[in-house]
Amino acid sequence: MNVELLAPDHERLWSDLHDLARLSEPDSEGWTRRVFSEPYRAARHWVRSRMRDAGLEVSVDPAGNIVGRLPGRHGGAPLVTGSHTDTVQGGGRFDGIVGVLGGIEVARRLRETGTRLDHDLLVVDFLGEESNPYSGSCLGSQAATGVLTAENLDRVDAAGNRLGDVATAFGLDPDGMLTPTWATRPLHGYLELHIEQGPTLEQRGIGIGIVTAIVGIERFLATFVGRSDHAGTRRMDDRRDALVAAARTVLTVEREGCAAPGDAVATCGDLRVEPGAENVVPGRTRLAAEFRSEDQVWLSGVRRRIVEEIARESAENGVEVLIDWTVDNPVVPTNPSVQNLTSAAADELGLSWMAMPSGAGHDAAHLAARCPAGMIFVPSRDGRSHCPEEWTDSDQIATGVHLLAAGLARMDQEATVDNDFGPTGEETGSLLTGTTAER
Amino acid sequence: MNVELLAPDHERLWSDLHDLARLSEPDSEGWTRRVFSEPYRAARHWVRSRMRDAGLEVSVDPAGNIVGRLPGRHGGAPLVTGSHTDTVQGGGRFDGIVGVLGGIEVARRLRETGTRLDHDLLVVDFLGEESNPYSGSCLGSQAATGVLTAENLDRVDAAGNRLGDVATAFGLDPDGMLTPTWATRPLHGYLELHIEQGPTLEQRGIGIGIVTAIVGIERFLATFVGRSDHAGTRRMDDRRDALVAAARTVLTVEREGCAAPGDAVATCGDLRVEPGAENVVPGRTRLAAEFRSEDQVWLSGVRRRIVEEIARESAENGVEVLIDWTVDNPVVPTNPSVQNLTSAAADELGLSWMAMPSGAGHDAAHLAARCPAGMIFVPSRDGRSHCPEEWTDSDQIATGVHLLAAGLARMDQEATVDNDFGPTGEETGSLLTGTTAER
Repeated sequence: MNVELLAPDHERLWSDLHDLARLSEPDSEGWTRRVFSEPYRAARHWVRSRMRDAGLEVSVDPAGNIVGRLPGRHGGAPLVTGSHTDTVQGGGRFDGIVGVLGGIEVARRLRETGTRLDHDLLVVDFLGEESNPYSGSCLGSQAATGVLTAENLDRVDAAGNRLGDVATAFGLDPDGMLTPTWATRPLHGYLELHIEQGPTLEQRGIGIGIVTAIVGIERFLATFVGRSDHAGTRRMDDRRDALVAAARTVLTVEREGCAAPGDAVATCGDLRVEPGAENVVPGRTRLAAEFRSEDQVWLSGVRRRIVEEIARESAENGVEVLIDWTVDNPVVPTNPSVQNLTSAAADELGLSWMAMPSGAGHDAAHLAARCPAGMIFVPSRDGRSHCPEEWTDSDQIATGVHLLAAGLARMDQEATVDNDFGPTGEETGSLLTGTTAER
Repeated sequence: MNVELLAPDHERLWSDLHDLARLSEPDSEGWTRRVFSEPYRAARHWVRSRMRDAGLEVSVDPAGNIVGRLPGRHGGAPLVTGSHTDTVQGGGRFDGIVGVLGGIEVARRLRETGTRLDHDLLVVDFLGEESNPYSGSCLGSQAATGVLTAENLDRVDAAGNRLGDVATAFGLDPDGMLTPTWATRPLHGYLELHIEQGPTLEQRGIGIGIVTAIVGIERFLATFVGRSDHAGTRRMDDRRDALVAAARTVLTVEREGCAAPGDAVATCGDLRVEPGAENVVPGRTRLAAEFRSEDQVWLSGVRRRIVEEIARESAENGVEVLIDWTVDNPVVPTNPSVQNLTSAAADELGLSWMAMPSGAGHDAAHLAARCPAGMIFVPSRDGRSHCPEEWTDSDQIATGVHLLAAGLARMDQEATVDNDFGPTGEETGSLLTGTTAER
């Protein structure tokens, strides 16, 4: 196979990207397309239409994922690529979208060049990957791989709306979302193209990242309970100031991050103060913090250390602290064979590349539990993401899509891709056991 | 005069206090009676009625203050006592209220015992003393003493309601609120009874505080501007974290307070984080902080130091900071003669007392600019205030009211009370130049 032939059509890809960008909340900053919103519904309609135009057989799986199938020469366990088209509030035009449109372009180029893969190729637009108001994320990839539970569907947003009900109103079948379609069928492999969302590739002048692992995340919500007092009449030595205790924790978390090995990071993303009046000593604060690393040993250590440290510091301020660990995602290494096949393809195309962890979570993390999975990163200007300024140049995207095609082609040629994680079932039937009408 | 005769009727005072407490928001925690609310309107109606029952001539001055007048033997510049009956959200039954009901009880005891003062005695329920949603406080005492401005009346709350309009809807005349009735007429003196709102009297087992000064307040709002980034993909050494910068300031402010001389305090009461998402490095934070002290030199010094310190620390984190000083209240010493007269009266009644500053602001601070003014404190259980747990024992209140009567009686006997602050006008007409219909 001459992979040079699979080079994408820059202008078509760029035009697709801007067509999709138009389908966003008119009154929100940036390009906002939250899961279950009307712009998201319109975008999914647009995606199905583009998939059909590309000659794919389109369906929506029971989990609500849009799946476009390009039949292979021999069928069997399919090769999968994809990402997501939902965005965060005030987000950009590239995060997730590049992987879905890139997958469609790969399928188009395969058909246009008469290149037939051995395996079926599935291009997937996974349902709602971004963090949602129901304390979750990666809805579609979690549902399809059997991670989503009935308890998840019962979670409510701040207004009391239940996730299961919102999904139903969107035209999905909550029972279907609890059917682990992708967990019980063999997949040949998964390769996802995504923007880096960080500054490393740009800062080093490298065009491609071959992802070695998706970092583990330890996230907690700490509630500091002190005592509200009149700020003018309570002496300094007689206070139980919940904001002072929380501020010490903010600096402790930062110190852990700065002292960590490798690319580990530690962040306090939110802090809320009660009663939050300028003349009242804060009686209660809530702090959201997280640690991310590809080093599972460090993650486990920092989790233990931080609990002791916060308890000790808060006690010095007469403040009680309750720590609720809300996320405990282990490190997910990508498949070494997929890494090797993709980097060999990059070498063949003459691309500069580096191995790097992904600091963000992705649908690939859930697919990696089911089949040999890997990811390709392209640069993000200034490392910005989840904001209107998010940007990747047209030629950088095209380079990533070209490598996606070349990587998938190499994976297709392997009889089986080595996998320590996936199922070993021999069934070779279609993944698409059912479709859900989506309004 | 036999001041023992002026001892208050404990049960009547206690019963008044509980009658007034019932006039509060039924659905709010504690005893909530915010300025301009319906419970506040009902409470002011009740206060006027109680004043009339006590034999006072009742009117509402142009500033909206309720004034009950007990004519003196010679009239002339009146002697004034009072406080306020509005509360903070979720407040208690004592803050301010003790001073108004105590004043009414003093007037009742004067009449019941046939004790006639030389000067007119005015018992005042000052309009809206607590911090209000229009960035102000002490509405009535500020208006009457000429501190309130047309610009203040133009301020709006979070819902866009203009203070002047809200006052009009309440039945007040905004033009009247800009008439400094009390600034242009001589006052013989002012003595206010109030709960301490702090723990010092209780911790030292002392029943009475003679207030030496109302502390100065330096309050600022600091806005820290960093850069929002994905918390998983932005390296620690490449961040501009606005929460880390704010947390350092919280600890710097606390350190200044702990190192300060005397009873100075330093508090960060509120901190808000944008965007405040658990997976985003905070790009912007806003911190409200204040310093209080009776030491004007320290206050001026800390104001200078903190600006330099915050700027230096924030620069280390790559964060810009804007500091807006929202309150710059100088220390207001009470009148030494009033202090001496009140403490002599306490000695005569055999009361334990101590001199102490007031860490909270009071209507007295504004009266002190116009006449010889002083304050009496009674203990607050556990130092709690602005909360439902606020409490002072019945006999502690009665002791304070007795001293209020004895102190006013001593002030009445002085031909003039020495005053460095007040006007020297010779007019002796009534303060009550106008009344405002209040619905």
